[in-house]
Amino acid sequence: MAEESVAAEQLRLFIERIERLEEEKKGISDDIKDVYAEAKSNGYDVKTMRKIVALRRQEAHARQEADALLETYRTALGLH
Amino acid sequence: MAEESVAAEQLRLFIERIERLEEEKKGISDDIKDVYAEAKSNGYDVKTMRKIVALRRQEAHARQEADALLETYRTALGLH
Amino acid sequence: MAEESVAAEQLRLFIERIERLEEEKKGISDDIKDVYAEAKSNGYDVKTMRKIVALRRQEAHARQEADALLETYRTALGLH
Amino acid sequence: MAEESVAAEQLRLFIERIERLEEEKKGISDDIKDVYAEAKSNGYDVKTMRKIVALRRQEAHARQEADALLETYRTALGLH
Repeated sequence: MAEESVAAEQLRLFIERIERLEEEKKGISDDIKDVYAEAKSNGYDVKTMRKIVALRRQEAHARQEADALLETYRTALGLH
Repeated sequence: MAEESVAAEQLRLFIERIERLEEEKKGISDDIKDVYAEAKSNGYDVKTMRKIVALRRQEAHARQEADALLETYRTALGLH
Repeated sequence: MAEESVAAEQLRLFIERIERLEEEKKGISDDIKDVYAEAKSNGYDVKTMRKIVALRRQEAHARQEADALLETYRTALGLH
Repeated sequence: MAEESVAAEQLRLFIERIERLEEEKKGISDDIKDVYAEAKSNGYDVKTMRKIVALRRQEAHARQEADALLETYRTALGLH
């Protein structure tokens, strides 16, 4: 029974650590939304900004390769 | 009690209809994966194909506007 | 150049097969939504129905084990 | 032209703020994974822990209502 109490207490501590981290994560997600909203109110387009963030995550080399390939496929399908 | 049986039976019928549809949906998702796999084995790039599918969903006008905006932002950030 | 035309045509065929399948998939997703909507209008709770669909996907044995474990954790945390 | 430089600079600042926040968010997501991994290595079941975290987010009243409804549906379908 003492062992079970220990286990329950340990479980509670793990759960509470996760809850604190989830709360922090939620706060940062809200901050990100706020920056996008601020940019939008300054006239920037949010969807294009998200694409920029994704493109900047890639190495220049990978980005150029992906660009070239997409261009080839779009030309093949007359998609401009 | 008879009423409860009717409700249980009706619930079961709804659930079974959903399950059949979910199964069909799963089958089609698998078919889509198969086509991508076949394209890949023919030398096509799956990631670029997914972009093409998304681009073709857009109206030409919206696609051109999005392209132009992204190009402007990339130039502003020296991202090529 | 003839080779390129062939490749473009083959790419188009792959893309069109995917688009047809995506359309079918969208149709079935809409059907699923319709069944849930019909069930809701008959007084059933959609969220609980989704849980039932998930539970029925599991083998009886796995379901009972998951139930028992959740019960143990809920008791340990006084969560009822 | 000076105006364009200002706009480009402002856009860059928004993008960099978002990138810093995304990095922080990624760090916290990794921390959460680490806590689950630590709990797992102490013998706890991660899937059940996730259910506990979700249940604790709900008000006691909502949780009890959802529990009762699920129990009713499971009984109706003989799903135990």
